[in-house]
Amino acid sequence: MPWYQLEDANDPRLDELAKQYNLHPLHVEDARSEEESVKVDTSAHYTFAVFKPVRLEPDPAAPAESIPVFSPVDIFAGKDFLITIADSRCSSTQQALERARRDGDDEHPARLLYLILDTIVDLYFPAIDHFDDRIDDLEDVVLASPTPAILQRVFALKRELIDLRRVLVNTRDASLHLQRDPESIIDTEHQPYVRDIYDHVARLLDSVETQRDLLNNTLDIYLSSVANRTNEVMKVLTVLSTIALPVIAISGIYGMNLKGLPFEQSAHGAEYVALLTILCTVLLLYLLRRMKWF
Amino acid sequence: MPWYQLEDANDPRLDELAKQYNLHPLHVEDARSEEESVKVDTSAHYTFAVFKPVRLEPDPAAPAESIPVFSPVDIFAGKDFLITIADSRCSSTQQALERARRDGDDEHPARLLYLILDTIVDLYFPAIDHFDDRIDDLEDVVLASPTPAILQRVFALKRELIDLRRVLVNTRDASLHLQRDPESIIDTEHQPYVRDIYDHVARLLDSVETQRDLLNNTLDIYLSSVANRTNEVMKVLTVLSTIALPVIAISGIYGMNLKGLPFEQSAHGAEYVALLTILCTVLLLYLLRRMKWF
Amino acid sequence: MPWYQLEDANDPRLDELAKQYNLHPLHVEDARSEEESVKVDTSAHYTFAVFKPVRLEPDPAAPAESIPVFSPVDIFAGKDFLITIADSRCSSTQQALERARRDGDDEHPARLLYLILDTIVDLYFPAIDHFDDRIDDLEDVVLASPTPAILQRVFALKRELIDLRRVLVNTRDASLHLQRDPESIIDTEHQPYVRDIYDHVARLLDSVETQRDLLNNTLDIYLSSVANRTNEVMKVLTVLSTIALPVIAISGIYGMNLKGLPFEQSAHGAEYVALLTILCTVLLLYLLRRMKWF
Amino acid sequence: MPWYQLEDANDPRLDELAKQYNLHPLHVEDARSEEESVKVDTSAHYTFAVFKPVRLEPDPAAPAESIPVFSPVDIFAGKDFLITIADSRCSSTQQALERARRDGDDEHPARLLYLILDTIVDLYFPAIDHFDDRIDDLEDVVLASPTPAILQRVFALKRELIDLRRVLVNTRDASLHLQRDPESIIDTEHQPYVRDIYDHVARLLDSVETQRDLLNNTLDIYLSSVANRTNEVMKVLTVLSTIALPVIAISGIYGMNLKGLPFEQSAHGAEYVALLTILCTVLLLYLLRRMKWF
Amino acid sequence: MPWYQLEDANDPRLDELAKQYNLHPLHVEDARSEEESVKVDTSAHYTFAVFKPVRLEPDPAAPAESIPVFSPVDIFAGKDFLITIADSRCSSTQQALERARRDGDDEHPARLLYLILDTIVDLYFPAIDHFDDRIDDLEDVVLASPTPAILQRVFALKRELIDLRRVLVNTRDASLHLQRDPESIIDTEHQPYVRDIYDHVARLLDSVETQRDLLNNTLDIYLSSVANRTNEVMKVLTVLSTIALPVIAISGIYGMNLKGLPFEQSAHGAEYVALLTILCTVLLLYLLRRMKWF
Repeated sequence: MPWYQLEDANDPRLDELAKQYNLHPLHVEDARSEEESVKVDTSAHYTFAVFKPVRLEPDPAAPAESIPVFSPVDIFAGKDFLITIADSRCSSTQQALERARRDGDDEHPARLLYLILDTIVDLYFPAIDHFDDRIDDLEDVVLASPTPAILQRVFALKRELIDLRRVLVNTRDASLHLQRDPESIIDTEHQPYVRDIYDHVARLLDSVETQRDLLNNTLDIYLSSVANRTNEVMKVLTVLSTIALPVIAISGIYGMNLKGLPFEQSAHGAEYVALLTILCTVLLLYLLRRMKWF
Repeated sequence: MPWYQLEDANDPRLDELAKQYNLHPLHVEDARSEEESVKVDTSAHYTFAVFKPVRLEPDPAAPAESIPVFSPVDIFAGKDFLITIADSRCSSTQQALERARRDGDDEHPARLLYLILDTIVDLYFPAIDHFDDRIDDLEDVVLASPTPAILQRVFALKRELIDLRRVLVNTRDASLHLQRDPESIIDTEHQPYVRDIYDHVARLLDSVETQRDLLNNTLDIYLSSVANRTNEVMKVLTVLSTIALPVIAISGIYGMNLKGLPFEQSAHGAEYVALLTILCTVLLLYLLRRMKWF
Repeated sequence: MPWYQLEDANDPRLDELAKQYNLHPLHVEDARSEEESVKVDTSAHYTFAVFKPVRLEPDPAAPAESIPVFSPVDIFAGKDFLITIADSRCSSTQQALERARRDGDDEHPARLLYLILDTIVDLYFPAIDHFDDRIDDLEDVVLASPTPAILQRVFALKRELIDLRRVLVNTRDASLHLQRDPESIIDTEHQPYVRDIYDHVARLLDSVETQRDLLNNTLDIYLSSVANRTNEVMKVLTVLSTIALPVIAISGIYGMNLKGLPFEQSAHGAEYVALLTILCTVLLLYLLRRMKWF
Repeated sequence: MPWYQLEDANDPRLDELAKQYNLHPLHVEDARSEEESVKVDTSAHYTFAVFKPVRLEPDPAAPAESIPVFSPVDIFAGKDFLITIADSRCSSTQQALERARRDGDDEHPARLLYLILDTIVDLYFPAIDHFDDRIDDLEDVVLASPTPAILQRVFALKRELIDLRRVLVNTRDASLHLQRDPESIIDTEHQPYVRDIYDHVARLLDSVETQRDLLNNTLDIYLSSVANRTNEVMKVLTVLSTIALPVIAISGIYGMNLKGLPFEQSAHGAEYVALLTILCTVLLLYLLRRMKWF
Repeated sequence: MPWYQLEDANDPRLDELAKQYNLHPLHVEDARSEEESVKVDTSAHYTFAVFKPVRLEPDPAAPAESIPVFSPVDIFAGKDFLITIADSRCSSTQQALERARRDGDDEHPARLLYLILDTIVDLYFPAIDHFDDRIDDLEDVVLASPTPAILQRVFALKRELIDLRRVLVNTRDASLHLQRDPESIIDTEHQPYVRDIYDHVARLLDSVETQRDLLNNTLDIYLSSVANRTNEVMKVLTVLSTIALPVIAISGIYGMNLKGLPFEQSAHGAEYVALLTILCTVLLLYLLRRMKWF
């Protein structure tokens, strides 16, 4: 059985293969589209599948961090032929094809298709773990210093999770389709294996849901931290005002050009007034203390 | 096969055609209604479809910005006739009809219908991209200067997205109906093409959902930016108060008409007191610094 | 075919009719209940329907504004009789019955039922428009002056929308039931007309959903306006404090009973000190300006 | 037909009856469980039902208020026997049983079951009305004085609504089950009556949903009232500072030990300076007024 | 009938059993996986089940508190054999196996499977109660002192609830699968018992939903408490400023080096001015009192 491994959907050989194996023009168009999404489509004599393996690459905006990148793999799997179109620069795709070459054999395109999909799904797990790490990081940072820059990172992560989730939802539907469609290339022997992949993707989606919840918690922590800090700042301001009040009021009183102020003529006037001021301040601080301010 | 191209549903020729081809009065009424929504309705001998192509026009309220505008197209597609009612001033509609004239042929109304719908759906993609650009813009502006005017733009965008989403949901349902209904004009040959359109609309809807999420993020960024700025303002106020406190308290003390204040009679009293004041201020600033305020 | 038009469900004639036409006691009880909700119930020989036409009436709490008021219409439509129970004081109900009398004929109870329901549904559109106007109003007012009284109006509107939505959801279900139930009085000829009503109600519900979204936006605008105003107030307070600071500090310094202050003995001391003070103030304001505070 | 009325599920007579009528051990266990929830279970020769009538009792934490209390009723309804297990201290349960005794007859266990369920459902309406009153109360209080204690009452009410909702959802499912299950004791004659009960419970659930919405509104009102009050307090503080500013600044200036201040030597210096101060204050207040602060 | 009780899925005896009883390699792989989730899978000659009993263990981060810990149990139940793989260090698992050994008998693997699952589900109830206690605790603490540390505990609890919920949802689906799948080992006699388990899990899930609601309430209480405290702090600051204002203004006035101030030459000047100051302060406090500030 021939296995055609193309590297680019715009390769003119695809047109020849399309003619030879009677591929539907819409499938060829899909394979060549820039924005194709994960899907499985079955026709009478072959199954067309688009998958999106993930790999982690340095973020161009912040090279210290990695972001998930997807590059599509197109597969035409007929009873007696297999066509794969995959960018050779993507390490995840290469890993999937290599395992298929090693563990599969040329007589079973269904097995080859299963092996490729299984590797692709297995490679989502490290991406999910990577998200877990970054969310844990963010939670720690948010509590330490809640700045708007952190919020931007939270929302950037949210955006990436939305993308990952969409790919996973489509992969789950595709694996269900592969397993259920009577015209699918997957035979009865391989159905439990594809169901197993389905279970894995479902678990991955579960993790993504949990991560979205955790990101929302991060946002709540952020907002409440800011509210709390404002509260703290206000308290400091009030305590400062409280300390300043007696000094300012009493020194103001003794600055008046009036007669008859107590201690005015006393040689120890300054001492008496200082004592009075300190007493008032201590009293006010004691009251704030009792109101549990610090 | 005749193709009648009307420009206005109120054209009296529609009544003649209705009589000739036995069009249902409710369909004619729908075509003439001001508030018709996207739908497909099949009857025994023809398929009635309303679509809403989108075009971008300058916003009358803010001419520098574009907003999406919808104008309906009504199609009666029978086995042996085609009636289209479309406003000739709408560029998107004209594009759809021209492509149908160029690529279709008069003997296949199903193909003509498919070509019109395909062009209409393709023209939603630039509108979605336009939304993407505007949301990116808003995110940048919100972080730079969170004013209520920005919020109004966020909500205006949200309103437009709600409208676009409704049109897309109805278009998705209409394309499903076209594909599934056994009475539909779409024959087996064209069904995969209509399913392809369905996939495109589903992807568009996915993008709209993501954009709604992103707009909600913008709102969260706005609210947290305001909270943060209040926090900043409070800190500045507190730092200012802290700086002012020692000067005011100490100058108040030395303004008292009392005897016995230290340095009062010293020739360098002013210097000593100035030093004391500066020391107190520096100490307070140091304490705030340790509490990580600036 | 007789058409009995009662004005009150407690009319003893209803008991006679119930006996004559074998009406189910639960239906009669429903018609007499105070809290009946919109529904359609079919039995072997007649269809029982409850609708709730809407009319706009001055709000007793705020006579300048209108609120939607519902009053029920009960209909027993058999093959050879029609009983309607409707309060004659409700203008919408009267409009619906009059149109039925004018356009329907006594031999087709299905057509009469359709005509009544169609008019009732058409009369929901002005109510929806009225809500649109009030929400637009609220949005303008909220931005101009966000007071808790506005919030109460927002929540009152929300309550009314909840009521309207419930009536519409039940009307949609009722029209679906009329169209689908094989025992329903609606015959094949009238089914497309009832489906048309269903489409109208679905569109109305769509508008109500959008209005709920817009009301939630109003709430968000309110909360963010308040947050923003607090922010503004804080800024004014801080700017005022900043302006006051140099005057108070410097005048405090020169109020001290100490020797050795600069310019103290100078004839132009006041001018020098005034200049110094103004310089400090301008410097502080310039700093705030650079931090983009005003 | 015998009707066994037990007061306690732990009554040993239940074991005898279980043996005599072949009751399933799981049903007996359910009846004896502390945490049984509303349900209907049908077996070949009898229907087992658990309902939870509601009654209003003084709140032990706040005796001036009433809270809803549920006590379960277990019913085993066979073709030729009826067993009810109900706490005789619960007034609602007693009302339900009494009506069944009065209006039902011993030969129709289906009718007895219907009568009991109908009374139980009717008694939910006053509980719902009671919630309406308490929510109205809360709304008024929240606007008048938004304190955290009010919030606790809001959340307590929310908790009670969650409980009530769960009981109602289960009752709705149970009445659907009674009506639909072919093995159910409810015969064709009583099916419309049970459907009527179903409609009532659906309406009750609708009200509960509305009440949850209203409680959430109360929460929003609370939060916005607090935000608004903070805003008001800030304004008062700023206006006070504004009033104080000119007095403090100008009196500070004239307290300086400097030569050359205007009016210093004038006999009417105090009057001139007072006038200047008042002028400055009025000017500042006028500016705040123009910014619509009060 | 043999019952093989392994303690570790990596035990080589599992490979022998897999060969002997023809176990599917995917099931063996699942049993050995680190991240297996609760599920039931039926094949032609045996049922494979994974359950996750819960036990409470001291939290390593805060030893005074307990957290729920899950350890998986794998079961292969065929007509004539039973294999269980369970960690002997988990007390809950041991309890489940012991009850199965005591109450079951070797001839009915379906009964053994039911007994194990029943015990596992029963042991979720104390875990739920434990959550109830901790949420009650948190609510009390949040009202007393709303600190960010509390928030972290709220979110930690939320995370644990998410985990528990996932296990319960999967257990519910698994028990449905056991009951419905015609190939399942559970025979007609045991189906009502498994349905009973299903009901228990559904009730547990209900409780978890309620607890999530209550945790969200806690969050709302937290945020509103912080907002309220900021409000209180602002009020104290304003009241303090109000008390200080008259003293500072009046003492400032009398500190001016001007002629013509009233009472300046009076022997009782200090008394008069003190009276005036106290009067102003009392008046301001009275005004604040009337505005219901304290």
